[in-house]
Formats: sequence, structure tokens, C-alpha cells
Amino acid sequence: MGQRRMGIDLGGTKIAAGIVNENLQIEADMQVPTGLPREPEDLADEIFRLAFKLLESRNLSMTDLGSVGIGIPGTVNQERESVEYANNFGFDDVPFVRMLRERFPCPVYAENDAKAAAWAEYLTGSGRGSTSMVAVTLGTGVGGGIILDGKILNGINSAAGELGHMVIRKNGRRCTCGRRGCLEAYASALALVRAAKRAVKSEKSPDSLLNQLCAGKPETINGKMIFEAVREKDVLAGAVLNRYLDDLAEGIANIINIIQPEVVCIGGGLSGAGEDLLLPLRKRVEPMIYSRSSEKNARLVTAELGNAAGIIGAAELYRL
Amino acid sequence: MGQRRMGIDLGGTKIAAGIVNENLQIEADMQVPTGLPREPEDLADEIFRLAFKLLESRNLSMTDLGSVGIGIPGTVNQERESVEYANNFGFDDVPFVRMLRERFPCPVYAENDAKAAAWAEYLTGSGRGSTSMVAVTLGTGVGGGIILDGKILNGINSAAGELGHMVIRKNGRRCTCGRRGCLEAYASALALVRAAKRAVKSEKSPDSLLNQLCAGKPETINGKMIFEAVREKDVLAGAVLNRYLDDLAEGIANIINIIQPEVVCIGGGLSGAGEDLLLPLRKRVEPMIYSRSSEKNARLVTAELGNAAGIIGAAELYRL
Repeated sequence: MGQRRMGIDLGGTKIAAGIVNENLQIEADMQVPTGLPREPEDLADEIFRLAFKLLESRNLSMTDLGSVGIGIPGTVNQERESVEYANNFGFDDVPFVRMLRERFPCPVYAENDAKAAAWAEYLTGSGRGSTSMVAVTLGTGVGGGIILDGKILNGINSAAGELGHMVIRKNGRRCTCGRRGCLEAYASALALVRAAKRAVKSEKSPDSLLNQLCAGKPETINGKMIFEAVREKDVLAGAVLNRYLDDLAEGIANIINIIQPEVVCIGGGLSGAGEDLLLPLRKRVEPMIYSRSSEKNARLVTAELGNAAGIIGAAELYRL
Repeated sequence: MGQRRMGIDLGGTKIAAGIVNENLQIEADMQVPTGLPREPEDLADEIFRLAFKLLESRNLSMTDLGSVGIGIPGTVNQERESVEYANNFGFDDVPFVRMLRERFPCPVYAENDAKAAAWAEYLTGSGRGSTSMVAVTLGTGVGGGIILDGKILNGINSAAGELGHMVIRKNGRRCTCGRRGCLEAYASALALVRAAKRAVKSEKSPDSLLNQLCAGKPETINGKMIFEAVREKDVLAGAVLNRYLDDLAEGIANIINIIQPEVVCIGGGLSGAGEDLLLPLRKRVEPMIYSRSSEKNARLVTAELGNAAGIIGAAELYRL
């Protein structure tokens, strides 16, 4: 057959592999712990073994695969077949893609994991049917993926799409990248959760629903609790979310003014909040964009594929 | 022959037309006052007459032209053959491109003027030979043009590339677009000149070289005077320029982190300062960019073509 594709989502905690069919659906998947720290050659062996076992479990073999794709949390240098800046892995310019190519008998494609997930949303998720999409992933940081004319924008050095490292508040909060005031420092899911923790601790308001939801333990607050409290009209949670959305909206309006994509797709943990996130966000973004009186403007949506995006996007990298 | 192209640069003050040869050089040019306010049909007639006279002056006729291109200070809607938001002209969704097409016997192409100028720099100016370029034009505002894979990025509504309307200082200075803290409010040539005027007025330091250069008349200060004073180590002018460059650098670093173009081309009046502008700007931008340790990073250069870019870029729109 050869029309099945394998997608591998390499994470800091686990490696997930899936067999993706022609309809871009996952037929079967399997995962193993990443087991960091680990040598690159050893990790490449582990990935090959996982792929082999997954195929075996479905009575398939390597010859049934048209290609293998992998999403890696770092910058993938296509020319050098290497991975740069994969902090969690301690990889810095390691020829990891070449190592995988030496192991698999079929073509191997690799891309940054956020870009691979964006690619899946573009092909078969909330961006399907569009000509251009920007994915904004709200997680520990703020990741991005820009898709224009059916291609992932990589730029001159494969590093394009670092939407989180756009300064929106000059001289603001320190960012992990060394600058101050980056979108990431205000608009990551982590930043929202931290702001909620701070608010609960400093207000010392036992009345706050958020304080009740976390049973008086602010350290356990997560994004879900915040949205739940907001839905119940909790004033404290509402104020925290409003401040968060104000910053996120600035970043999204900036992106729209620069790129004017057909779709802006919000992914990552917080995207589960769906319309509770989108409605107040749209209300903020719409008056900010330069083209607000244009007939056509970007559609702001949440990601649809969840964790499957990583595997599907990786499997479909061969299309690029 | 038919291999000559005509480029028209429609400005608020004058209309400039040029005949551009196969080597992308202007063979002949001519200009007339725009004479605003003016009805669109009347303006289209004026443009046709100018083109006719220019051809006549070179013993050429319309049949010698492969195409005509025009750069317009507004948003050009390609689908509707119209011009949206050309504030100076009072055009709002006027089918101006169609009006021109009705007059000329050859194909007529139209684009936003800043994008047309960026296109010229990409083809035959400081961006030549590159695969991707972002033009940042420092004038009354901050304009932009993004060129990727040999195409001008228009986005879903032709409005992509509004780099000036990226907020870098949330809740900062009010911008003409309605938001606060846009790059344009800090990094336009106008913003630099205004800051210098304010500084000279408020410091009341007759020692300042800048005060001497303007003969005690701060209202006459321009960009050239500021750079001249900085070259002569004037402290006041140096402080003004440093603050300006800090803001401009934030905007440029943001653009690089998002798009990672091969070339960033600074155009507009201030680009005449050349290395006096580029050296301190590079020093600021380099440590800010996320990919600073990458082998390849954007080259920061100034525009080469000056006013000719408008005509050449318009003439070459047929390539898109």
C-alpha cells in the first residue's frame, strides 16, 4: 500500500507515534516515556523501536509506510538535518534528523513540533479549507506556526514564527529569551495561571470562588479552574482573565496587522475553554485591527485536534 | 518591442511616471502635480494624459508598452479592482484600478505604493538576490512590505504588512489608527523629528549643536540636521536618536522573530543616513533576536533606489 504515514510527536515526557491514514485520521498509536536525559543516538534507536512495535501491533511493516514525520521541540535545521536549541533535550546542533534517516527505510521529515501541530490544524482541523493560517499556541510559552500558500513559513534559518518573542510592552517583564516585555511573558497559559495564583494569595479573599475551587491552595490553580470561576462570575478570576486577554489581544492584533491570515488558530491547553476564551478575545481584537472596516478579516478560532495534532501534523510533513 | 514597462507613482503632491527598460532602469520620466482634491475619473484622465505625453516625448506609443503599473497610497483590493482607505485622496472603495484599465490598451497592475517600492528594492535594490525581504519605510508613518518567495504578501484582504501598527508599548502614545503604543507612534521619521523639536525647546540649551543647526528655530529641524548633530557628538541629539533607535529596534527585532526574512530593508527619508543609522541599529537588534546564535540571520540594510523605487516597483508589478 505505502499510503499510510507515520507521525511521531517527540515530547519532553513521552514519545507518541501514530499511523495516519489517507483521511488524515490516526488508525493506531502508541507511546513510551522519553526518559531524559538521553544520548541522541539512543533516543533515535528508541524512536525506531517504537515505530516498529506500533507497526507490528497492526500486522504492518516498514514497507507499508510512505514516510515518517517527526515533530521536535526545537529548531529543525533542514539543510543540516540537525536540531538546534532543543533545550529540554540538551540538543544544540545535533544531526538528529540524519540519525533517524539512517534508521528508517522510508523518507523521514522533521519539523518543529509547534509548526507540525499547526500544519495538522491547517490541513484537517480548524484551519481546513483556508489559504493561510497563523497558529498561536498558549502553553508554558507562546509558540507559533505561520502557514502561507500551503507552506509552513520557516524563514532564512528555520526560526520564523516565534510569535511569543514579540515585545508588546517595552521594558516590561523579563522573558526567558533575554528581552523584556515579550508576548510570552504575559500571554502564555503559565502567565495566566501565575497571575491567578498571585491574585488569590495577595487578595486573601476567602470569598473568591477561585480560592474555593483550589481549596485554599493557590499553588494548585490551573487554567480550567480559572475559566470555571469566570463562568460563575467570580470577580477575582474575571479581573485576572481580563488583564490576560488584554495582553493576548494586543499580540493577536499585531499578528493580524502584519500577516492578515485567513485564520488565527489558538491552541494549547487554554484552547479547551472554547467560546469562553474566543468571545471576549474577539471583542478585544476586532476594534484593534487596522483593517477592521475591510470586508474580509481573519477568523479567530480554537484548535480542534488537541493532542492528535502533533502526530497528524508530523505524518503529513511529506506534503510540504 | 513591447518590452518597456511604465511605472506610475501616485503621490499626494505629485504624480510621477517613468518608462522602465528591461534592465529595470528608468529611461525617461515626467511628473505633474496631483492637484487634490480631485474626482477619481478626472485623476484617471490625468494619469493617462501624463503617460501619453511621456511616451510622446520619447517618440513612443502605447503599443510599445508591455504593461503599466501604478503604486497608490492606500489599500488596493485586487479582486474588486478598487482602492480602499486612501485617506489623502478621499477614496474609500473607489474602483480606481478599473477606471485606469478602461483607459489603457495594455494590462494595468496596481498595488499599495509602499509595497511597490519594496518590490523594486527586492528586485533591483538592496534586496536583490535574496529570497525574502521585509521593507520598513520610515516616513510620516511607518510603512511596510513583506516579500516571500518572490511574491508580495497581501494577506486575505490586501492589508498585510502594516508593520507600523504593531503595538510595542501597550497603553503608550496614541496612534492615528486608534490603538495606543504602535511602532508608528515612536519610530516614524516624523516621531524622531518631533522628539528632537521637543528636546530643543524644553532643554533651552543654546549650546546644543542641534539648536545652532536650526538657527534657534526648532520648528525647522529635520532628520538630516539630527544626524549631522549626532555625527558631531552633540549630546542632546545623541540622546534623542538613542531613544528613537531603542524603539525602532524593538519593532525590527519583533519582525525578524516572526518572519526571519533574509533582508530587512529600511527605507524612507531617514535611510539616507546610511551607516549612521544602520550601525547603532544593528548593535541594538542583534542581541534582541531569538535566533541570535543561528548561523544565518537577517541582513539589515538601507534602501538603495530612493524615489526611483516607486516608479520601478510599479513598472515591475506585472511579474507578480
